[in-house]
Amino acid sequence: MSGEDIVTAAVLVIGDEILSGRTRDCNINYIAAHFTRVGIRLQEVRIVADDEAAIVEAVDALRARYTYVITTGGIGPTHDDITADAIAKAMGVSIDHDPRAVALLDAYFAKRGVEPTPARMRMARIPHGAELVANAVSIAPGFMIGNVIVLAGVPDVMQVMLDDVTPRLRTGSRMITATIKLLRAEGDVADLFASHQQKFPDVAMGSYPTFAEGRVSTQLVLRSTDSAMLEIARASLEGELIARGLLKI
Amino acid sequence: MSGEDIVTAAVLVIGDEILSGRTRDCNINYIAAHFTRVGIRLQEVRIVADDEAAIVEAVDALRARYTYVITTGGIGPTHDDITADAIAKAMGVSIDHDPRAVALLDAYFAKRGVEPTPARMRMARIPHGAELVANAVSIAPGFMIGNVIVLAGVPDVMQVMLDDVTPRLRTGSRMITATIKLLRAEGDVADLFASHQQKFPDVAMGSYPTFAEGRVSTQLVLRSTDSAMLEIARASLEGELIARGLLKI
Repeated sequence: MSGEDIVTAAVLVIGDEILSGRTRDCNINYIAAHFTRVGIRLQEVRIVADDEAAIVEAVDALRARYTYVITTGGIGPTHDDITADAIAKAMGVSIDHDPRAVALLDAYFAKRGVEPTPARMRMARIPHGAELVANAVSIAPGFMIGNVIVLAGVPDVMQVMLDDVTPRLRTGSRMITATIKLLRAEGDVADLFASHQQKFPDVAMGSYPTFAEGRVSTQLVLRSTDSAMLEIARASLEGELIARGLLKI
Repeated sequence: MSGEDIVTAAVLVIGDEILSGRTRDCNINYIAAHFTRVGIRLQEVRIVADDEAAIVEAVDALRARYTYVITTGGIGPTHDDITADAIAKAMGVSIDHDPRAVALLDAYFAKRGVEPTPARMRMARIPHGAELVANAVSIAPGFMIGNVIVLAGVPDVMQVMLDDVTPRLRTGSRMITATIKLLRAEGDVADLFASHQQKFPDVAMGSYPTFAEGRVSTQLVLRSTDSAMLEIARASLEGELIARGLLKI
């Protein structure tokens, strides 16, 4: 639609453990729902291994195309945590221990009597020119450089970092959703639904079947940033479904 | 390692509902674990919208790079199901109602007294030259064309299709995994673990922290296709951890 303020994003999940099936990602869905709520459109997700070349290539492709790129994973203290260095390489900047991050970690470790080993202090390595992203759970920060936002992979930590960085992000018009649930198969409504989509080209319409306990059901989902238009499209679809006996009042 | 037989794959998830956060994908983890078991290495995942240009671009990028590309989603009867047409476009072949798929659907609908509407028969549209992939749950088939395998998005259906197609896939050497669980933070073992990785460059080593119920724990995961080498690397790491008091016997 013309005049709409559209802000887009991609998520890049970094981690061998997701690709091997050892770990089930739950950050993608969390970030997707969060962005929908605040008015940012998630348009692409990639998952790559803990491999510098793969990370650099994906970051470069995504940051050129979307308003923001969020990465998750690979910023811990162990040798397989290579995200910060890969992002510095992708952005063409140097990386070193950042005095702000060093101060945060020094204070945190001192208070807890934990030794600031070289491995632990690796978590203070931040690309030159980045802003820090606060981590209220375990202190070691994420960061934002250009339009790339680098968050932890551990879900609790990722979530507090996302809360910290969200107020700094530009947001656009919010997608609003209307859902009609039918106790019918998709095939029963597909022709009607397709012609309804043609009547309302600016409302995105999708159909999602479920098979549960031997029963088939279908959710028809309508999405738009224009709440008045969405309500007209929803009410008119509901009317047609009722008229044809596909939906009970 | 030289002489190893490596078979690679990518997964392409197609669906607005995943990107909006409405639906939580569970196919990625299922396929990842399945491929690890049979000896196929999942190296990349992408999630894109129900958008022809986005699907074509992703399929083209992935099929050139990996042995196999598995797509999930977008092969139902409704107007938002555009995967089959997008794959035909990417592969440069025509698409039409496939007589084998038409026969399957005709018999299935006749037996159940369901009308074979144009929308339902859209599910028989298969790119020219593709092999069918059987769907024991709801009959409408997936397909395989070149190195691209097109499966349903509904998890139950995706899983039976994956079982049907797996015997047709080339598989390579299997990754074996050894895990050591420590009641310590990652930072306590990071330096030792990094030097252990240097001693065994052919064994992939990753560290995965967990924070649960106020306790920190870490899993050290070692992976290799060589079971003898893996056992030496595991036993030697365990020995060092015990010697330094980081692991109890």
